[in-house]
Amino acid sequence: MSLVPGHTVQAQLQWRYATKKFDPSRKISESDWQVLEQSLVLSPSSFGLQPWKFFIVTNPEVKAQLPAMSWRQNQPHDCSHMVVFAIRDKMGAEHIDRFVARTAEVHGVPPESLAGFRKMMVGSLLKETFPINEWATRQVYIALGQFMACAAMMGIDTCPMEGIDCAKYDDILGISAQGFATSVACAAGYRAADDKYAVLPKVRFLTEDVVQEI
Amino acid sequence: MSLVPGHTVQAQLQWRYATKKFDPSRKISESDWQVLEQSLVLSPSSFGLQPWKFFIVTNPEVKAQLPAMSWRQNQPHDCSHMVVFAIRDKMGAEHIDRFVARTAEVHGVPPESLAGFRKMMVGSLLKETFPINEWATRQVYIALGQFMACAAMMGIDTCPMEGIDCAKYDDILGISAQGFATSVACAAGYRAADDKYAVLPKVRFLTEDVVQEI
Repeated sequence: MSLVPGHTVQAQLQWRYATKKFDPSRKISESDWQVLEQSLVLSPSSFGLQPWKFFIVTNPEVKAQLPAMSWRQNQPHDCSHMVVFAIRDKMGAEHIDRFVARTAEVHGVPPESLAGFRKMMVGSLLKETFPINEWATRQVYIALGQFMACAAMMGIDTCPMEGIDCAKYDDILGISAQGFATSVACAAGYRAADDKYAVLPKVRFLTEDVVQEI
Repeated sequence: MSLVPGHTVQAQLQWRYATKKFDPSRKISESDWQVLEQSLVLSPSSFGLQPWKFFIVTNPEVKAQLPAMSWRQNQPHDCSHMVVFAIRDKMGAEHIDRFVARTAEVHGVPPESLAGFRKMMVGSLLKETFPINEWATRQVYIALGQFMACAAMMGIDTCPMEGIDCAKYDDILGISAQGFATSVACAAGYRAADDKYAVLPKVRFLTEDVVQEI
């Protein structure tokens, strides 16, 4: 275990910003990307259910089509890796079964021994009135937060993008055809030297206005 | 700028898990906590609007009351710092104005110069049909993801807690009285030596099942 000093964590969070202009010539190295990919895979989620799939767009021809469905913003085109966070659309019992089977496999126990755990998840999540897609979207936002924080630690820039046409992303990337639905996206790569937003002071409310100790 | 090696980031994400049993005798140091507090303050949010407030419970008497409103789980009692993530309930134009004023202050420009930015935010977020509380909750989950990732980097354990009685948290912590509403919580501190969950292998779907390159 090799801990990261607190001052490094804080300095990297200060360094990051929502990058408006990426340098299209700079790509994330394969070894760095492997870590960021694992930051997605390892992201925490409710019950550990991972109700998601991450679509990583690096193909230049596909990336070139994305600004038109992203309010004409160029980050999806100019970044190194465009990450599309998709939820499992209307997650049902078959996904819970898949997760139970995977848990049994990893823990080396019979799936039947997890019947109580399965029942609890089904009871909590599969009620008709439960907003399952919104629940899944919240989980995806945990992954988004973890991804951006880890990228910042490694000196890699990101720009979260909520203002995208999710239905068009679903269509062009074949996401809906697999039973998933786009929630949000995040461009990753390196800031352009002339991104004027990079030098603007970060705007945050005062700590005492957003944190209260009890 | 002092970058964190990718292998360190990945090792710390592997190390973390949803801690079931905290060591009540171990507290997060003041200097480490200052960094974690800033990981909340610096969290990214849509438009940078920070539609949130973070309530940090360390008072032992208050913490002792929380398990009863947390499905009898003991993490809120045994952890070092219990973080309650609250959204600004039904965020309105006055919050957008507050943010515009803060942006003007930090950037040293007149608030009127941000009229177009303000109009865009109002137009996007304050439509009657827009689910403003759900939007705010998603932002809070970004902060949750960033908080857990940063804690892991620093060797600090966390347990995200969705299964809490938010209305009771709102009440006992005086959250609703301030115009906020509890969304989710996260216990932070150090794992107990006998938390059997600490040694269970992490359960994740195979990378090829949750990541697709395009």
